Amino acid sequence: LADTEASMLENVVFASFVFYSTLLILKMFAIAVITGQVRLRKKAFANPEDALRHGGIQYFREDPDVERCRRAHRNDMENIFPFLFLGAVYSMTEPTLLVARIHFQVFFVGRLVHTVAYLCALKAPTRSLAYTVAQVPCVSMAVQILIAVAAYW
Amino acid sequence: LADTEASMLENVVFASFVFYSTLLILKMFAIAVITGQVRLRKKAFANPEDALRHGGIQYFREDPDVERCRRAHRNDMENIFPFLFLGAVYSMTEPTLLVARIHFQVFFVGRLVHTVAYLCALKAPTRSLAYTVAQVPCVSMAVQILIAVAAYW
Amino acid sequence: LADTEASMLENVVFASFVFYSTLLILKMFAIAVITGQVRLRKKAFANPEDALRHGGIQYFREDPDVERCRRAHRNDMENIFPFLFLGAVYSMTEPTLLVARIHFQVFFVGRLVHTVAYLCALKAPTRSLAYTVAQVPCVSMAVQILIAVAAYW
Repeated sequence: LADTEASMLENVVFASFVFYSTLLILKMFAIAVITGQVRLRKKAFANPEDALRHGGIQYFREDPDVERCRRAHRNDMENIFPFLFLGAVYSMTEPTLLVARIHFQVFFVGRLVHTVAYLCALKAPTRSLAYTVAQVPCVSMAVQILIAVAAYW
Repeated sequence: LADTEASMLENVVFASFVFYSTLLILKMFAIAVITGQVRLRKKAFANPEDALRHGGIQYFREDPDVERCRRAHRNDMENIFPFLFLGAVYSMTEPTLLVARIHFQVFFVGRLVHTVAYLCALKAPTRSLAYTVAQVPCVSMAVQILIAVAAYW
Repeated sequence: LADTEASMLENVVFASFVFYSTLLILKMFAIAVITGQVRLRKKAFANPEDALRHGGIQYFREDPDVERCRRAHRNDMENIFPFLFLGAVYSMTEPTLLVARIHFQVFFVGRLVHTVAYLCALKAPTRSLAYTVAQVPCVSMAVQILIAVAAYW
Protein backbone atom coordinates (compact mmCIF):
# COMPACT_ATOMS: atom_id res chain seq x y z
CA LEU A 1 0.00 0.00 0.00
CA ALA A 2 2.90 2.34 0.65
CA ASP A 3 3.58 2.03 -3.06
CA THR A 4 0.66 4.34 -3.72
CA GLU A 5 2.56 7.40 -2.80
CA ALA A 6 5.85 6.38 -4.28
CA SER A 7 4.01 5.89 -7.54
CA MET A 8 2.87 9.51 -7.47
CA LEU A 9 6.52 10.54 -7.77
CA GLU A 10 6.84 8.10 -10.68
CA ASN A 11 4.27 10.18 -12.53
CA VAL A 12 6.63 12.28 -14.61
CA VAL A 13 4.31 15.29 -14.73
CA PHE A 14 3.96 15.31 -10.94
CA ALA A 15 7.72 14.79 -10.51
CA SER A 16 8.40 17.75 -12.80
CA PHE A 17 5.93 19.87 -10.81
CA VAL A 18 7.62 18.82 -7.57
CA PHE A 19 11.03 19.80 -8.93
CA TYR A 20 10.07 23.40 -9.72
CA SER A 21 7.89 23.77 -6.63
CA THR A 22 10.66 22.71 -4.30
CA LEU A 23 13.11 25.13 -5.93
CA LEU A 24 10.58 27.94 -5.50
CA ILE A 25 10.13 27.09 -1.82
CA LEU A 26 13.90 27.22 -1.36
CA LYS A 27 13.82 30.59 -3.13
CA MET A 28 11.27 31.78 -0.56
CA PHE A 29 13.48 30.53 2.27
CA ALA A 30 16.31 32.53 0.67
CA ILE A 31 14.20 35.73 0.83
CA ALA A 32 13.71 35.08 4.56
CA VAL A 33 17.46 34.77 5.05
CA ILE A 34 18.07 37.95 3.02
CA THR A 35 15.45 39.79 5.13
CA GLY A 36 17.30 38.78 8.28
CA GLN A 37 20.62 39.93 6.83
CA VAL A 38 19.16 43.31 5.82
CA ARG A 39 17.69 43.71 9.33
CA LEU A 40 21.13 43.13 10.85
CA ARG A 41 22.94 45.40 8.37
CA LYS A 42 20.42 48.25 8.57
CA LYS A 43 19.82 47.67 12.30
CA ALA A 44 16.02 47.59 11.91
CA PHE A 45 14.23 44.97 13.97
CA ALA A 46 10.60 43.90 14.08
CA ASN A 47 10.63 43.25 17.84
CA PRO A 48 11.89 45.17 20.88
CA GLU A 49 13.59 42.04 22.22
CA ASP A 50 15.60 41.70 18.98
CA ALA A 51 16.58 45.39 19.04
CA LEU A 52 17.75 45.11 22.64
CA ARG A 53 20.02 42.24 21.69
CA HIS A 54 21.49 44.22 18.80
CA GLY A 55 22.35 47.57 20.32
CA GLY A 56 19.24 49.11 21.83
CA ILE A 57 15.53 49.76 21.64
CA GLN A 58 16.08 52.53 19.08
CA TYR A 59 16.68 49.80 16.49
CA PHE A 60 13.10 48.57 16.91
CA ARG A 61 12.06 50.38 13.73
CA GLU A 62 11.02 49.97 10.13
CA ASP A 63 13.41 50.23 7.21
CA PRO A 64 12.52 50.63 3.53
CA ASP A 65 14.92 47.87 2.41
CA VAL A 66 13.48 45.45 4.98
CA GLU A 67 9.94 46.34 3.92
CA ARG A 68 10.90 45.67 0.29
CA CYS A 69 12.08 42.15 1.23
CA ARG A 70 8.85 41.59 3.15
CA ARG A 71 6.70 42.68 0.22
CA ALA A 72 8.58 40.29 -2.08
CA HIS A 73 8.06 37.48 0.44
CA ARG A 74 4.36 38.23 0.87
CA ASN A 75 3.80 38.36 -2.89
CA ASP A 76 5.43 34.93 -3.11
CA MET A 77 3.00 33.62 -0.50
CA GLU A 78 0.08 35.04 -2.47
CA ASN A 79 1.21 33.34 -5.67
CA ILE A 80 3.55 30.40 -5.04
CA PHE A 81 1.35 28.76 -2.37
CA PRO A 82 -1.66 28.59 -4.75
CA PHE A 83 0.69 27.13 -7.39
CA LEU A 84 1.60 24.31 -4.99
CA PHE A 85 -2.08 23.31 -4.96
CA LEU A 86 -2.94 24.01 -8.60
CA GLY A 87 0.16 22.26 -9.95
CA ALA A 88 -0.40 19.13 -7.85
CA VAL A 89 -4.05 18.77 -8.88
CA TYR A 90 -3.33 19.71 -12.50
CA SER A 91 -0.78 16.86 -12.56
CA MET A 92 -3.68 14.52 -11.79
CA THR A 93 -5.66 15.63 -14.86
CA GLU A 94 -3.33 13.72 -17.19
CA PRO A 95 -1.90 16.61 -19.18
CA THR A 96 0.81 15.86 -21.72
CA LEU A 97 4.30 16.20 -20.25
CA LEU A 98 5.33 18.85 -22.77
CA VAL A 99 2.39 21.15 -22.08
CA ALA A 100 2.61 20.60 -18.32
CA ARG A 101 6.32 21.42 -18.24
CA ILE A 102 5.68 24.65 -20.15
CA HIS A 103 3.17 25.61 -17.44
CA PHE A 104 5.63 24.85 -14.64
CA GLN A 105 8.64 26.47 -16.33
CA VAL A 106 6.83 29.68 -17.26
CA PHE A 107 5.67 30.03 -13.65
CA PHE A 108 9.14 29.22 -12.33
CA VAL A 109 10.95 31.73 -14.53
CA GLY A 110 8.25 34.36 -13.96
CA ARG A 111 8.59 34.10 -10.19
CA LEU A 112 12.39 34.11 -10.34
CA VAL A 113 12.33 37.31 -12.38
CA HIS A 114 9.71 38.74 -10.01
CA THR A 115 11.99 38.21 -7.02
CA VAL A 116 15.04 39.70 -8.74
CA ALA A 117 12.97 42.67 -9.97
CA TYR A 118 11.59 43.22 -6.46
CA LEU A 119 14.80 42.92 -4.46
CA CYS A 120 16.83 44.94 -6.96
CA ALA A 121 14.04 47.52 -7.45
CA LEU A 122 14.24 47.16 -11.23
CA LYS A 123 12.47 49.81 -13.30
CA ALA A 124 8.68 49.34 -13.59
CA PRO A 125 6.94 47.48 -15.10
CA THR A 126 9.51 44.63 -14.99
CA ARG A 127 8.14 43.21 -11.76
CA SER A 128 4.47 43.56 -12.73
CA LEU A 129 5.16 41.89 -16.08
CA ALA A 130 6.88 38.95 -14.36
CA TYR A 131 3.93 38.63 -12.00
CA THR A 132 1.44 38.65 -14.89
CA VAL A 133 3.42 36.13 -16.93
CA ALA A 134 3.55 33.77 -13.92
CA GLN A 135 -0.21 34.11 -13.38
CA VAL A 136 -1.00 32.85 -16.89
CA PRO A 137 -0.10 29.18 -16.22
CA CYS A 138 -1.87 29.38 -12.83
CA VAL A 139 -5.15 30.55 -14.36
CA SER A 140 -4.72 28.04 -17.18
CA MET A 141 -4.28 25.19 -14.68
CA ALA A 142 -7.24 26.40 -12.61
CA VAL A 143 -9.49 26.38 -15.67
CA GLN A 144 -8.34 22.91 -16.73
CA ILE A 145 -8.91 21.61 -13.20
CA LEU A 146 -12.42 23.07 -13.11
CA ILE A 147 -13.20 21.42 -16.44
CA ALA A 148 -11.91 18.09 -15.08
CA VAL A 149 -14.03 18.19 -11.91
CA ALA A 150 -16.99 20.27 -13.12
CA ALA A 151 -19.32 17.32 -12.70
CA TYR A 152 -18.50 16.96 -9.00
CA TRP A 153 -19.68 20.17 -7.37
CA LEU B 1 1.32 3.86 -12.48
CA ALA B 2 0.22 7.28 -13.67
CA ASP B 3 -3.29 6.02 -13.01
CA THR B 4 -2.69 6.50 -9.30
CA GLU B 5 -3.14 10.21 -9.49
CA ALA B 6 -5.89 10.20 -12.03
CA SER B 7 -7.80 7.92 -9.69
CA MET B 8 -7.59 10.54 -6.94
CA LEU B 9 -9.70 12.83 -9.10
CA GLU B 10 -12.13 9.93 -9.59
CA ASN B 11 -12.73 9.99 -5.85
CA VAL B 12 -15.90 12.06 -5.79
CA VAL B 13 -15.19 13.57 -2.38
CA PHE B 14 -11.75 14.71 -3.48
CA ALA B 15 -13.13 16.00 -6.78
CA SER B 16 -15.76 18.01 -4.94
CA PHE B 17 -13.07 19.44 -2.65
CA VAL B 18 -10.94 20.35 -5.67
CA PHE B 19 -13.89 22.13 -7.30
CA TYR B 20 -14.50 24.50 -4.38
CA SER B 21 -10.80 24.95 -3.61
CA THR B 22 -9.99 25.99 -7.16
CA LEU B 23 -12.85 28.50 -7.18
CA LEU B 24 -11.56 29.97 -3.92
CA ILE B 25 -8.04 30.30 -5.35
CA LEU B 26 -9.49 32.13 -8.36
CA LYS B 27 -11.36 34.35 -5.87
CA MET B 28 -8.02 35.16 -4.22
CA PHE B 29 -6.49 35.99 -7.61
CA ALA B 30 -9.45 38.32 -8.15
CA ILE B 31 -8.64 40.18 -4.92
CA ALA B 32 -5.09 40.68 -6.22
CA VAL B 33 -6.45 42.15 -9.45
CA ILE B 34 -8.83 44.41 -7.52
CA THR B 35 -5.96 45.57 -5.30
CA GLY B 36 -3.99 46.56 -8.39
CA GLN B 37 -6.97 48.43 -9.83
CA VAL B 38 -7.51 50.33 -6.56
CA ARG B 39 -3.80 51.23 -6.48
CA LEU B 40 -4.07 52.70 -9.98
CA ARG B 41 -7.34 54.54 -9.30
CA LYS B 42 -6.27 55.95 -5.94
CA LYS B 43 -2.66 56.46 -7.11
CA ALA B 44 -1.17 54.68 -4.10
CA PHE B 45 1.77 52.41 -4.84
CA ALA B 46 3.74 50.03 -2.65
CA ASN B 47 7.06 50.76 -4.35
CA PRO B 48 8.89 53.94 -5.42
CA GLU B 49 9.56 52.45 -8.88
CA ASP B 50 5.82 51.91 -9.42
CA ALA B 51 5.00 55.44 -8.27
CA LEU B 52 7.59 56.92 -10.60
CA ARG B 53 5.99 55.14 -13.53
CA HIS B 54 2.55 56.44 -12.57
CA GLY B 55 3.09 60.14 -12.00
CA GLY B 56 5.74 60.64 -9.36
CA ILE B 57 7.30 59.58 -6.10
CA GLN B 58 4.50 61.30 -4.15
CA TYR B 59 2.26 58.37 -5.10
CA PHE B 60 4.49 55.98 -3.13
CA ARG B 61 2.03 56.01 -0.26
CA GLU B 62 -0.57 54.00 1.64
CA ASP B 63 -4.28 54.25 1.00
CA PRO B 64 -7.11 52.97 3.23
CA ASP B 65 -8.93 51.27 0.34
CA VAL B 66 -5.75 49.50 -0.76
CA GLU B 67 -5.07 48.42 2.82
CA ARG B 68 -8.59 47.02 3.03
CA CYS B 69 -7.98 44.86 -0.04
CA ARG B 70 -4.68 43.69 1.44
CA ARG B 71 -6.32 42.73 4.74
CA ALA B 72 -8.96 40.72 2.87
CA HIS B 73 -6.22 38.98 0.89
CA ARG B 74 -4.15 38.21 3.97
CA ASN B 75 -7.15 36.81 5.83
CA ASP B 76 -7.76 34.53 2.85
CA MET B 77 -4.19 33.28 3.09
CA GLU B 78 -4.63 32.61 6.80
CA ASN B 79 -7.77 30.56 6.20
CA ILE B 80 -8.03 29.27 2.62
CA PHE B 81 -4.48 27.87 2.49
CA PRO B 82 -5.08 25.67 5.59
CA PHE B 83 -8.35 24.53 3.98
CA LEU B 84 -6.39 23.32 0.92
CA PHE B 85 -4.50 20.97 3.22
CA LEU B 86 -7.31 19.97 5.57
CA GLY B 87 -9.80 19.32 2.75
CA ALA B 88 -7.37 17.17 0.79
CA VAL B 89 -6.46 14.99 3.78
CA TYR B 90 -10.05 14.86 5.03
CA SER B 91 -11.02 13.50 1.58
CA MET B 92 -8.70 10.57 2.32
CA THR B 93 -10.54 9.66 5.54
CA GLU B 94 -13.48 8.22 3.57
CA PRO B 95 -16.22 10.60 4.70
CA THR B 96 -19.65 10.24 3.12
CA LEU B 97 -20.09 12.48 0.09
CA LEU B 98 -23.07 14.29 1.61
CA VAL B 99 -21.29 15.23 4.83
CA ALA B 100 -18.08 16.13 3.01
CA ARG B 101 -19.87 18.41 0.55
CA ILE B 102 -21.57 20.22 3.42
CA HIS B 103 -18.11 20.90 4.89
CA PHE B 104 -16.80 22.23 1.58
CA GLN B 105 -19.89 24.27 0.73
CA VAL B 106 -20.17 25.92 4.14
CA PHE B 107 -16.51 26.93 3.92
CA PHE B 108 -16.95 28.13 0.34
CA VAL B 109 -20.01 30.28 1.05
CA GLY B 110 -18.50 31.56 4.31
CA ARG B 111 -15.36 32.76 2.55
CA LEU B 112 -17.31 34.31 -0.32
CA VAL B 113 -19.42 36.29 2.16
CA HIS B 114 -16.24 37.20 4.07
CA THR B 115 -14.68 38.71 0.94
CA VAL B 116 -17.81 40.67 0.00
CA ALA B 117 -18.21 41.89 3.60
CA TYR B 118 -14.56 42.98 3.68
CA LEU B 119 -14.32 44.72 0.32
CA CYS B 120 -17.71 46.46 0.72
CA ALA B 121 -17.05 47.28 4.41
CA LEU B 122 -20.39 45.79 5.43
CA LYS B 123 -21.62 46.60 8.94
CA ALA B 124 -20.00 44.52 11.72
CA PRO B 125 -20.27 41.71 12.63
CA THR B 126 -21.10 40.41 9.12
CA ARG B 127 -17.49 39.73 8.23
CA SER B 128 -16.60 38.17 11.60
CA LEU B 129 -19.66 35.93 11.41
CA ALA B 130 -18.69 34.74 7.92
CA TYR B 131 -15.16 34.03 9.19
CA THR B 132 -16.48 32.04 12.14
CA VAL B 133 -18.94 30.04 10.04
CA ALA B 134 -16.13 29.12 7.62
CA GLN B 135 -13.89 28.03 10.50
CA VAL B 136 -16.42 25.44 11.72
CA PRO B 137 -15.87 22.93 8.86
CA CYS B 138 -12.11 23.52 9.10
CA VAL B 139 -11.97 22.63 12.79
CA SER B 140 -14.35 19.73 12.15
CA MET B 141 -12.09 18.35 9.42
CA ALA B 142 -8.99 18.85 11.58
CA VAL B 143 -10.56 16.87 14.41
CA GLN B 144 -11.66 14.05 12.10
CA ILE B 145 -8.18 13.92 10.57
CA LEU B 146 -6.56 13.73 14.01
CA ILE B 147 -8.89 10.86 14.96
CA ALA B 148 -7.97 9.04 11.73
CA VAL B 149 -4.21 9.32 12.26
CA ALA B 150 -4.07 9.44 16.07
CA ALA B 151 -2.25 6.11 16.16
CA TYR B 152 0.63 7.41 13.99
CA TRP B 153 2.23 10.17 15.99
CA LEU C 1 -10.58 3.46 -6.89
CA ALA C 2 -11.43 5.45 -3.79
CA ASP C 3 -8.99 3.14 -2.02
CA THR C 4 -6.14 5.08 -3.57
CA GLU C 5 -6.50 7.93 -1.16
CA ALA C 6 -7.36 5.90 1.86
CA SER C 7 -4.15 4.00 1.26
CA MET C 8 -2.17 7.23 1.46
CA LEU C 9 -3.28 7.54 5.08
CA GLU C 10 -2.21 3.93 5.61
CA ASN C 11 1.33 4.99 4.73
CA VAL C 12 2.67 5.42 8.25
CA VAL C 13 5.15 8.15 7.28
CA PHE C 14 2.39 10.18 5.61
CA ALA C 15 0.04 9.58 8.55
CA SER C 16 2.71 10.81 10.97
CA PHE C 17 3.25 13.89 8.82
CA VAL C 18 -0.51 14.53 8.75
CA PHE C 19 -0.70 14.27 12.54
CA TYR C 20 1.88 17.00 13.20
CA SER C 21 0.71 19.18 10.30
CA THR C 22 -2.87 19.20 11.51
CA LEU C 23 -1.78 20.12 15.04
CA LEU C 24 0.28 23.00 13.64
CA ILE C 25 -2.70 24.26 11.62
CA LEU C 26 -4.81 24.20 14.79
CA LYS C 27 -1.99 26.11 16.48
CA MET C 28 -2.25 28.76 13.74
CA PHE C 29 -6.02 28.95 14.23
CA ALA C 30 -5.31 29.50 17.93
CA ILE C 31 -3.10 32.51 17.10
CA ALA C 32 -6.00 33.97 15.11
CA VAL C 33 -8.31 33.55 18.10
CA ILE C 34 -5.72 35.11 20.42
CA THR C 35 -5.31 38.05 18.00
CA GLY C 36 -9.05 38.65 18.14
CA GLN C 37 -9.05 38.51 21.94
CA VAL C 38 -6.17 40.99 22.16
CA ARG C 39 -7.99 43.32 19.75
CA LEU C 40 -11.05 43.27 22.00
CA ARG C 41 -9.09 43.68 25.23
CA LYS C 42 -6.83 46.47 23.93
CA LYS C 43 -9.64 47.99 21.85
CA ALA C 44 -7.56 48.15 18.67
CA PHE C 45 -9.37 47.19 15.48
CA ALA C 46 -8.18 46.75 11.91
CA ASN C 47 -11.35 48.16 10.36
CA PRO C 48 -13.50 51.26 11.01
CA GLU C 49 -16.67 49.12 10.97
CA ASP C 50 -15.27 46.92 13.76
CA ALA C 51 -14.25 49.95 15.83
CA LEU C 52 -17.71 51.50 15.46
CA ARG C 53 -19.27 48.33 16.81
CA HIS C 54 -16.92 48.31 19.80
CA GLY C 55 -17.09 51.85 21.13
CA GLY C 56 -16.12 54.28 18.41
CA ILE C 57 -13.91 55.14 15.44
CA GLN C 58 -11.05 56.08 17.79
CA TYR C 59 -10.49 52.35 18.32
CA PHE C 60 -9.60 51.91 14.63
CA ARG C 61 -5.90 51.88 15.50
CA GLU C 62 -2.79 49.76 15.75
CA ASP C 63 -1.58 48.18 18.98
CA PRO C 64 1.85 46.67 19.68
CA ASP C 65 0.40 43.51 21.24
CA VAL C 66 -1.89 42.97 18.25
CA GLU C 67 1.00 43.55 15.84
CA ARG C 68 3.05 40.97 17.75
CA CYS C 69 0.31 38.37 17.27
CA ARG C 70 0.13 39.25 13.58
CA ARG C 71 3.89 38.87 13.15
CA ALA C 72 3.76 35.43 14.81
CA HIS C 73 0.89 34.44 12.50
CA ARG C 74 2.66 35.70 9.38
CA ASN C 75 5.88 33.90 10.29
CA ASP C 76 3.83 30.71 10.64
CA MET C 77 2.45 31.22 7.15
CA GLU C 78 5.97 31.71 5.80
CA ASN C 79 7.18 28.47 7.37
CA ILE C 80 4.34 26.08 8.18
CA PHE C 81 2.66 26.33 4.76
CA PRO C 82 5.87 25.26 2.95
CA PHE C 83 6.17 22.40 5.46
CA LEU C 84 2.71 21.16 4.42
CA PHE C 85 4.04 20.74 0.89
CA LEU C 86 7.55 19.51 1.69
CA GLY C 87 6.37 16.98 4.29
CA ALA C 88 3.73 15.50 1.99
CA VAL C 89 6.12 15.06 -0.93
CA TYR C 90 8.95 13.88 1.31
CA SER C 91 6.58 11.16 2.60
CA MET C 92 6.42 9.89 -0.99
CA THR C 93 10.20 9.45 -1.23
CA GLU C 94 10.07 6.36 1.00
CA PRO C 95 12.12 7.61 3.94
CA THR C 96 12.45 5.34 6.97
CA LEU C 97 9.77 6.03 9.57
CA LEU C 98 12.32 6.82 12.28
CA VAL C 99 14.16 9.45 10.24
CA ALA C 100 10.94 10.93 8.89
CA ARG C 101 9.42 11.28 12.35
CA ILE C 102 12.53 13.06 13.58
CA HIS C 103 12.08 15.56 10.74
CA PHE C 104 8.42 16.13 11.62
CA GLN C 105 8.94 16.29 15.37
CA VAL C 106 11.87 18.71 15.22
CA PHE C 107 9.79 21.01 13.01
CA PHE C 108 6.77 20.64 15.28
CA VAL C 109 8.63 21.42 18.50
CA GLY C 110 10.60 24.22 16.83
CA ARG C 111 7.42 25.94 15.68
CA LEU C 112 5.71 25.48 19.05
CA VAL C 113 8.66 27.12 20.81
CA HIS C 114 8.69 29.84 18.14
CA THR C 115 5.06 30.72 18.87
CA VAL C 116 5.54 30.75 22.65
CA ALA C 117 8.72 32.83 22.29
CA TYR C 118 6.92 35.28 20.00
CA LEU C 119 3.70 35.73 21.96
CA CYS C 120 5.49 35.91 25.33
CA ALA C 121 8.29 38.14 23.93
CA LEU C 122 10.96 35.82 25.35
CA LYS C 123 14.50 37.16 25.46
CA ALA C 124 16.38 37.03 22.13
CA PRO C 125 17.59 34.85 20.51
CA THR C 126 15.08 32.22 21.74
CA ARG C 127 12.64 32.87 18.91
CA SER C 128 15.31 33.05 16.19
CA LEU C 129 16.85 29.82 17.43
CA ALA C 130 13.49 28.04 17.34
CA TYR C 131 12.96 29.35 13.80
CA THR C 132 16.38 28.11 12.70
CA VAL C 133 15.95 24.68 14.30
CA ALA C 134 12.59 24.26 12.53
CA GLN C 135 14.13 25.24 9.19
CA VAL C 136 16.69 22.42 9.34
CA PRO C 137 14.22 19.56 8.65
CA CYS C 138 12.55 21.71 5.96
CA VAL C 139 15.78 22.25 4.06
CA SER C 140 16.70 18.59 4.60
CA MET C 141 13.37 17.45 3.12
CA ALA C 142 13.69 19.89 0.22
CA VAL C 143 17.14 18.52 -0.65
CA GLN C 144 15.96 14.90 -0.43
CA ILE C 145 12.96 15.73 -2.64
CA LEU C 146 15.20 17.39 -5.23
CA ILE C 147 17.45 14.33 -5.28
CA ALA C 148 14.40 12.08 -5.76
CA VAL C 149 13.02 14.06 -8.72
CA ALA C 150 16.24 15.51 -10.14
CA ALA C 151 15.81 13.50 -13.33
CA TYR C 152 12.41 15.03 -14.09
CA TRP C 153 13.06 18.72 -14.62
